[in-house]
Amino acid sequence: MDERTRLRLDVAYDGTDFSGWAAQPTRRTVAGVLVATLDLVLGAGTVTGLTVAGRTDAGVHATGQVCHLDLPATVWAEHRERLLRRLARLLPGDVRVRAMTEVPADFDARFSATFRRYEYRVTDAPWGAEPLRRRDTLAWPRALDPAALNVAAAGLVGEHDFAAYCRRKENATTVREVTRLDWRRDPDGILVATVQADAFCQAMVRSLVGAMLTAGDGRRPVGWPAGLLVRRERSSEVTVAPAHGLTLVAVGYPADPAEYADRADRTRRLRLPVES
Amino acid sequence: MDERTRLRLDVAYDGTDFSGWAAQPTRRTVAGVLVATLDLVLGAGTVTGLTVAGRTDAGVHATGQVCHLDLPATVWAEHRERLLRRLARLLPGDVRVRAMTEVPADFDARFSATFRRYEYRVTDAPWGAEPLRRRDTLAWPRALDPAALNVAAAGLVGEHDFAAYCRRKENATTVREVTRLDWRRDPDGILVATVQADAFCQAMVRSLVGAMLTAGDGRRPVGWPAGLLVRRERSSEVTVAPAHGLTLVAVGYPADPAEYADRADRTRRLRLPVES
Repeated sequence: MDERTRLRLDVAYDGTDFSGWAAQPTRRTVAGVLVATLDLVLGAGTVTGLTVAGRTDAGVHATGQVCHLDLPATVWAEHRERLLRRLARLLPGDVRVRAMTEVPADFDARFSATFRRYEYRVTDAPWGAEPLRRRDTLAWPRALDPAALNVAAAGLVGEHDFAAYCRRKENATTVREVTRLDWRRDPDGILVATVQADAFCQAMVRSLVGAMLTAGDGRRPVGWPAGLLVRRERSSEVTVAPAHGLTLVAVGYPADPAEYADRADRTRRLRLPVES
Repeated sequence: MDERTRLRLDVAYDGTDFSGWAAQPTRRTVAGVLVATLDLVLGAGTVTGLTVAGRTDAGVHATGQVCHLDLPATVWAEHRERLLRRLARLLPGDVRVRAMTEVPADFDARFSATFRRYEYRVTDAPWGAEPLRRRDTLAWPRALDPAALNVAAAGLVGEHDFAAYCRRKENATTVREVTRLDWRRDPDGILVATVQADAFCQAMVRSLVGAMLTAGDGRRPVGWPAGLLVRRERSSEVTVAPAHGLTLVAVGYPADPAEYADRADRTRRLRLPVES
């Protein structure tokens, strides 16, 4: 059997016209477009085992998505010099492969990851979102107080059972460790939330943002988002913020490649689903 | 006759789906959409004399466009509190009115302006433009040297006859004063040119950028763009850079409103056409 090479791909996309990451037979997805383009360049079926760090939902963007795949070492040796530029020419403008890097076979884009970091962009300007950024910025109809948003955020940092903010799945823990959650107002007035955790359950970032926004505009007390954590079940009072404000900006991996396998084993044991 | 109020509008747009600023009977333009929406809110023909600082070409964007218009003082008094939010709801997402300000009747968005400032965004990453910024970033297929770009730029600063970079018009001077022209590489790797002048002739910024890019990637000497100035006529060797990298970011006016009229008189005397 052919010796195979594992590649790490750093991927960016504008999620507007994609039905999310995961391949679906009848919909345009990032994974679908990526595999179809690789098949075109390398031959159908050459690339196998495409695995992604964060299975982003429909409409969610990425600047720092990571995935891995395998291909025959001979094919990689033949194409490595020119593959990045060929993909740049053949891929549609809303998805880009920023880098392709040879990695050890025990690198797993999903299970070796130590953290995922997202940003959520919101404007509270009465005139709405800057036209050139309207695809990745939510226009909020009420004034937002960054101080209130940050008090609400602080109560969510740490290891908690985020069941109130998750769609429950059988056999999957909803305990997550949020290592960073804060808001800043950029020079252009945009409010940006940075949310980082070991992993997220589905729609968790958008649920957290939805809850914080109702505290940020004064309709709920600043302690309300953290108070929901004690419920241990999905709260119907939480509105999931729209997908288009959300961007996956970074995925972290152990600095030492020798830890890829250990990290992956540990993640699998914890049954952490790693979706956005 | 009704007393009329003059308003300054600060406008932003994504130029991708517009055939430029100026109204045209059968095409979608920024002025056309703006007037149609104002007519909808205030009644057809209520607003008159729409005049813009920079008549941007098809595909060119703006974050800091300025225009003025007149309307009956009674209509303004009735709508002033809610007009900005009503426009935010009724305008399409690719054009926004960021501010509406009452100004003296001798404020002229076009003729009172003291400078126009544009930015041009280019990436030389081999993988192309960040998907979320592909609408306002040119992907350049060769590596660019910021130092070479800045040497080329420095030779173009100052008052010159920019005929080599203008489409000549009868009775219009091609002498302009470029007060700022420099390149920076942003933290995300994007090269951004800032170009500021009293006024520009049509396609002048994109012609300057096109010439500088051929110096920045090493195909022309760094002194070549400035060397063209001596020709005093449109050069066929200059490639006009694509519209989508260009954004009008600011228009300057005299700090003292008492100077609006003087400035406008002076500009009219100089026969400065003020298009991008």
